[in-house]
Amino acid sequence: MEIFVINSGSSSIKYQLFSQDSSSPLCSGLVERIGQPDALITHKYRQHDEEKVLYIQQQVPDHEAGMQVVGELLTRDGIAVIRDSGQVGAVGHRVVHGGEKLTGTTVITPGVKDKIKALYPLAPLHNPGHIKGIEVSEKIFPQAVQIAVFDTAFHTSLPEKAFRYAIPDSFYKNHGIRVYGFHGISHQYVSGEAMKYLNHTDAKLITIHLGNGCSMAAVNGGKSVDTSMGLTPLDGLIMGTRSGCIDASVLLYLAERENYSTEQLTTLLNKQSGMQGLTGHNDMRDISALYNNGNARAELAYEMYAYRIKKFIGAYAAAMNGLDAIVFTAGVGENDALARDLVCRNMDFLGIKLDNEKNSEKGNGIRDLSAPASRARILVVPTNEELEIARQCRQLLGETTGR
Amino acid sequence: MEIFVINSGSSSIKYQLFSQDSSSPLCSGLVERIGQPDALITHKYRQHDEEKVLYIQQQVPDHEAGMQVVGELLTRDGIAVIRDSGQVGAVGHRVVHGGEKLTGTTVITPGVKDKIKALYPLAPLHNPGHIKGIEVSEKIFPQAVQIAVFDTAFHTSLPEKAFRYAIPDSFYKNHGIRVYGFHGISHQYVSGEAMKYLNHTDAKLITIHLGNGCSMAAVNGGKSVDTSMGLTPLDGLIMGTRSGCIDASVLLYLAERENYSTEQLTTLLNKQSGMQGLTGHNDMRDISALYNNGNARAELAYEMYAYRIKKFIGAYAAAMNGLDAIVFTAGVGENDALARDLVCRNMDFLGIKLDNEKNSEKGNGIRDLSAPASRARILVVPTNEELEIARQCRQLLGETTGR
Ligand SMILES: Nc1ncnc2c1ncn2[C@@H]1O[C@H](COP(=O)(O)OP(=O)(O)O)[C@@H](O)[C@H]1O
Ligand SMILES: Nc1ncnc2c1ncn2[C@@H]1O[C@H](COP(=O)(O)OP(=O)(O)O)[C@@H](O)[C@H]1O
Repeated sequence: MEIFVINSGSSSIKYQLFSQDSSSPLCSGLVERIGQPDALITHKYRQHDEEKVLYIQQQVPDHEAGMQVVGELLTRDGIAVIRDSGQVGAVGHRVVHGGEKLTGTTVITPGVKDKIKALYPLAPLHNPGHIKGIEVSEKIFPQAVQIAVFDTAFHTSLPEKAFRYAIPDSFYKNHGIRVYGFHGISHQYVSGEAMKYLNHTDAKLITIHLGNGCSMAAVNGGKSVDTSMGLTPLDGLIMGTRSGCIDASVLLYLAERENYSTEQLTTLLNKQSGMQGLTGHNDMRDISALYNNGNARAELAYEMYAYRIKKFIGAYAAAMNGLDAIVFTAGVGENDALARDLVCRNMDFLGIKLDNEKNSEKGNGIRDLSAPASRARILVVPTNEELEIARQCRQLLGETTGR
Repeated sequence: MEIFVINSGSSSIKYQLFSQDSSSPLCSGLVERIGQPDALITHKYRQHDEEKVLYIQQQVPDHEAGMQVVGELLTRDGIAVIRDSGQVGAVGHRVVHGGEKLTGTTVITPGVKDKIKALYPLAPLHNPGHIKGIEVSEKIFPQAVQIAVFDTAFHTSLPEKAFRYAIPDSFYKNHGIRVYGFHGISHQYVSGEAMKYLNHTDAKLITIHLGNGCSMAAVNGGKSVDTSMGLTPLDGLIMGTRSGCIDASVLLYLAERENYSTEQLTTLLNKQSGMQGLTGHNDMRDISALYNNGNARAELAYEMYAYRIKKFIGAYAAAMNGLDAIVFTAGVGENDALARDLVCRNMDFLGIKLDNEKNSEKGNGIRDLSAPASRARILVVPTNEELEIARQCRQLLGETTGR
């Protein structure tokens, strides 16, 4: 049985198709700028053991039109990866916000859709796009089981002391204002892979997802017990364009003294801050090039970026009262030796000691970068959220998952 | 030479008078509700080795009138603690905000006053009251040197990576938006006392000031290298009525979805949150009584309060790459065995192990509560901001300080 994985946004659809017996997809792709005149479809597939890419520029007025093209590409003569779309037994949908009620991977029923819709106020930029994707997928793959995999679900194990804010109870009870945490599919995947690699199911892990968005999780025995993003993905680490933690009074000050509107503050903190605000760049490759040229702003930004991560490592080691391994993942975590170096420097009090040579080697797959003297292991685990979604679908359907 | 210490607020003046040779004041007191019909003066003094208190209810139209009464009380027949007010050689003023330019205790000149005034936007609730106190004191004690001791000064040693927010540079450069930190006089005093007690001037200390306001500092070799309050005293720990750290998006959400004004948000986060918001009480004695009766809200609030502190301990141990001692101080830190117990529980990974018996004994002065197995010492150091101010005045004037 094939599993089709969809990540549907407000104007884009990302997809991958997995067959039973492989962890690399049969094909993958992206439909972007849906509804705009210059919509683009990028479709990657394997043929005779070669990676091929097809670019299609055409009118894609809405999600349904986009998915129709994708559905057709799967079986198109000459590039088909399956014989007919009926082979797709399940469609796994990435859903950013599952709130408190959607605590695990679940078959999508009308009731589940209602719950996803009820969370629109908390995830206005994401959940509406997911619902579109689900409804279109029900039409294009009518024979398949539709399954939702939530970015928040892994963090529903947080204890109350970690997920509550110190504001009056009513804000939690009536408005659902609490820490939800995000990147859960990634934290779950890499912590699971790390536990297998370490052959240690009770491990105290800190997973460090450093992509455009950045977050950390304290994972104790496979359960998330704390995480750095909060009500929204704004809080915590310094990110590409997001500030992470900031004194709430900064917002009050700017609103009161500089007449910033809520919208301006939202844009400032989400799009113009983080590494972008500090250096004028949000791509870490650009910033590390500047760093290597001795650019002072890039140096400060890298130091701040790493320092924030260090402090969360300490905080989570305290929260778990122990630390078996830290796990770097996502674009920066997997590839940026400088960021890892700065994070691990002068951390031997917590048992962290990097092997600088291993750190600077490029590599694929899971790697252990710790020096022999390191009490905590330092791992790089490439994340794979789509594969995790496919696995969770199989698991839900009772198929063997090869985990 | 006697030193008069003043903490002048918008509608109150607190004061203490120190003589050269004692660390306990000759007298102390409080003028409150200045400008209101029911102003009250509470004046404490020693007579024949007995503590006496005098309450005076009278019209106090402004700070000058208040200080005039206080000045007269110092020499009033029958209760005089000095012969004439000319014995006061220096007046030490607590000033909350010294910004980036006022980095240490300083004689107050017109230029210093201008700098304190320039910080009104950053400290609108505090600096105006301090200026009033200074100007009145110049009239009442014209022969004395006026000295300012800043709550922010101790934290001006923070490295840039710790004091900058990840927002565009211009907010720092043009608006002064950065971490300033507060309670600096207390953190400096207790870290100094702890270093003497431990006989270790290079110690890596974490000072934990838990009063109505709460803050922590990482103090490495006598220098503050990080602290939990930020631009304002709102950030960081959970406090009596303040939320501490919170996802900035909570403010954006409430403004956007619930039409909260900036003023309402300011009140919510500063006056109605923290322990008050979680339990309906802000005095820890009330909350610990509820906790001991098994009240679920008090239990959650205490757990959250302690958990936040634990995480900062871990973060600062990471920041300093080591930990020699944690130091509890202020009303809760000095007196609340339950809070200390919850903070120190399950912290042996960081070398922290409390002696439960010592923790539950009442005591005065500096105490060491660590179990023999504790690698880090756990100290209680009663804070004394007024004494610290008096000492810093003497130091500035080149007198021996008895430190
Ligand atoms: N070799 C590299 N060195 C440094 N940074 C890298 C490297 N490769 C990718 N990155 C960074 O990874 C980030 C994107 O990570 P990714 O996980 O793809 O993001 P997303 O959060 O969008 O999934 C970008 O900031 C990019 O610069
Ligand atoms: N014995 C005690 N047990 C618990 N809390 C106490 C005790 N004594 C004082 N406190 C608490 O200390 C807090 C005030 O601390 P203090 O340092 O006086 O505050 P401030 O920040 O105003 O200087 C109050 O919450 C009070 O309940």
